[in-house]
Amino acid sequence: MKPAAVSSVAFRQETDSRPLPPGWKSYTSPEGLRYYVNSCSKETTWRRPSLLTESPQRPLAQQNSSPYANGCHSITKTSRPTEATDVALRKPTMMTQPPGSVSPARRQIKEVKETKITINCVTFPLPGEGPEQQLLKPNEWSYCDYFWNDKKDPQGTTSVAGFEVLLQKQLKGKQMQKEMAEFIHERIKIEEEYAKNLSKLSLNPLAAQEEGTLGEAWTQLKKSLHDEAEVHLKFSNKLHTEVEKPLLTFRCENFKKDLKKYDHHIADLRKQLASRYTSVEKARKALADRQKDLEVKTQQLEIKLSNKTEEDIKKARRKSTQAGDDLMRCVDLYNQTQCKWFEEMVTTSMELEKLEVERIEWIQQHLRQYTTLRHETDMFNQSMVEPVDKLLQNVDPAKDRELWVRENNTGDVRPVDMDI
Amino acid sequence: MKPAAVSSVAFRQETDSRPLPPGWKSYTSPEGLRYYVNSCSKETTWRRPSLLTESPQRPLAQQNSSPYANGCHSITKTSRPTEATDVALRKPTMMTQPPGSVSPARRQIKEVKETKITINCVTFPLPGEGPEQQLLKPNEWSYCDYFWNDKKDPQGTTSVAGFEVLLQKQLKGKQMQKEMAEFIHERIKIEEEYAKNLSKLSLNPLAAQEEGTLGEAWTQLKKSLHDEAEVHLKFSNKLHTEVEKPLLTFRCENFKKDLKKYDHHIADLRKQLASRYTSVEKARKALADRQKDLEVKTQQLEIKLSNKTEEDIKKARRKSTQAGDDLMRCVDLYNQTQCKWFEEMVTTSMELEKLEVERIEWIQQHLRQYTTLRHETDMFNQSMVEPVDKLLQNVDPAKDRELWVRENNTGDVRPVDMDI
Repeated sequence: MKPAAVSSVAFRQETDSRPLPPGWKSYTSPEGLRYYVNSCSKETTWRRPSLLTESPQRPLAQQNSSPYANGCHSITKTSRPTEATDVALRKPTMMTQPPGSVSPARRQIKEVKETKITINCVTFPLPGEGPEQQLLKPNEWSYCDYFWNDKKDPQGTTSVAGFEVLLQKQLKGKQMQKEMAEFIHERIKIEEEYAKNLSKLSLNPLAAQEEGTLGEAWTQLKKSLHDEAEVHLKFSNKLHTEVEKPLLTFRCENFKKDLKKYDHHIADLRKQLASRYTSVEKARKALADRQKDLEVKTQQLEIKLSNKTEEDIKKARRKSTQAGDDLMRCVDLYNQTQCKWFEEMVTTSMELEKLEVERIEWIQQHLRQYTTLRHETDMFNQSMVEPVDKLLQNVDPAKDRELWVRENNTGDVRPVDMDI
Repeated sequence: MKPAAVSSVAFRQETDSRPLPPGWKSYTSPEGLRYYVNSCSKETTWRRPSLLTESPQRPLAQQNSSPYANGCHSITKTSRPTEATDVALRKPTMMTQPPGSVSPARRQIKEVKETKITINCVTFPLPGEGPEQQLLKPNEWSYCDYFWNDKKDPQGTTSVAGFEVLLQKQLKGKQMQKEMAEFIHERIKIEEEYAKNLSKLSLNPLAAQEEGTLGEAWTQLKKSLHDEAEVHLKFSNKLHTEVEKPLLTFRCENFKKDLKKYDHHIADLRKQLASRYTSVEKARKALADRQKDLEVKTQQLEIKLSNKTEEDIKKARRKSTQAGDDLMRCVDLYNQTQCKWFEEMVTTSMELEKLEVERIEWIQQHLRQYTTLRHETDMFNQSMVEPVDKLLQNVDPAKDRELWVRENNTGDVRPVDMDI
């Protein structure tokens, strides 16, 4: 979808005052575009949903067009207390397995492994597993779609967050812009030097005593060098104010500060995500232990080793249920954080994308100004030669002879014979 | 009369095969124009005389159109022996004066003074005296018409020949031409320096890592500096071969030698003129003495102081006649030399005039070449910017994002909720 097209559509939609269908909320993307999220179906779309469009018989399409499938699912779940028993209800099915089989905890982990993988504390669907994902902004190569993984650095030892790659691009862009300004500055210096030499030469007295119409043409030719110098000086001045400065000062002060802010914000969320992942692992271990304990006690009951086991089993089952609830809470918290990080990733990478577009357009605009000024310079230079051409056309040897003879003649009376 | 008109007339006349009227000879001016001199009437004209045009009833007009009134009169005289007696015949009229009156010699000098004046050994008609002179080349301000007198130098101590003034103009012109070449050379050095700096900057690695369409535009912009440099280098090379060199080498080798030749030739004639003027003065003095002696002897005869005076008077009259002949010869020789000098002055000054016209046209032509090259340079420079403009128009942030994301993305699989 082309941004231009989107914004025009978006504009049309801004003016749409009808209420959204139940379950829909509207958000504004960093690009200032409105998009819509359904908190129940998790459907996300650029198109304003109407009561007609939200037909329930399109579950796959709904999943596909969601930026974060199931992303905020658990969060909404937590608002429903009945959940706790849901998990408890599943336990009997776990217990119908033959003794000595894989522990439910381990089986549970295995289940996770089957469809999802967690890399650097971020959880991804395994290839081919889970609902197919569509790009958030198809055909746009948007930053928000392509930097979800971390990136192994060349040595493969440490890995860099995808977001860091985006930040590096920004810093490099800033550097390029700065270097272009430097380059223009060098050009300015060359023009100033050239202008200085031309106007110096134009004041040189060489052949200043040439006379008549030729003398006038020559004087104009020398003067034209001064005019040329002026043109090049003007060029260098405009280069400074209209190209170098804009390139140098564009987002100078706050830019890097803002990038740091983004950087820290995203990094903090990743840290939080890591710690919450650790809690999940702990809780998972605890649940596994509790379930093992319950199993043992259940076997003891069967072989009637103790008479007070009834009590123990009730207790163990309570603790196991408790551990199940703990794990569920931890996973919820983990998913909440991952969801928050996801949202920040989308928002911030779209912001960076916008910044890069601005940078490129800014540079394009001012390099165009450079070529315009170069063009002007050549035009002006040409006009500086014209008066010289005129005077050269007027050069007239006969006229010059008359002027010189009038001034320097010694007498036009011719000698005559001497008389005797 | 405009040279163009003259030459066209002259051309028509070249084709005229009819014989000239008696007494007329045709000469070719240094400008290659034919002119005509009547050796008897001394009439000079650009128009080919026909038997009809030479009507004797226009003596003044004839005198007026002569370049050197009476110039070669005495030369032709010398070809007629009867002349000698002419002078002798005048003597009796001189002698019919009362005794004690001014001596004929002094009277003769007085006569000369009345109509003519000799300055630095050159004889001119006194203002208002003698036939009115017309310019040799009216309306042309030709050198051959305006440098007959010598010129007092600022201090008024020594005086410079009019011809020297013409030579100084030539030397100054040569100097101006040389200085223009120097000026162009300085411009060449400035262009080379400018080109050197531009191509050096174009190789500068600044912002070389800019990517995508923007990177392409930037690379082209840097390349364009190298192209500009090439244009300015080409300009400086052409300035050297097509402007500086021609200005520098124009009449380099023989020019000053030729001027010296002219200078010596004219100066020698002036020296000769001076020595012949001295002889004239001597002869005039001698004649005066002889006439005095004859007077004395004549008086002695009247008062009969001696008896052998008859013989003495005869002798004295012979000697006086002899002295008269001597003076006449000296004056002839003087006039011959002055006539030769006159002719050389006309020929050479017209040659110098031609040289100056050539110099001015040569310089005009090559300064025009300068403006042509300047114009070309600006044209080429403009074309160097065009490819940059094209690539700047193609700059596309979306395209650049795609290229970069394709290469640097870390993965487009979005995270999903962890399961319990």
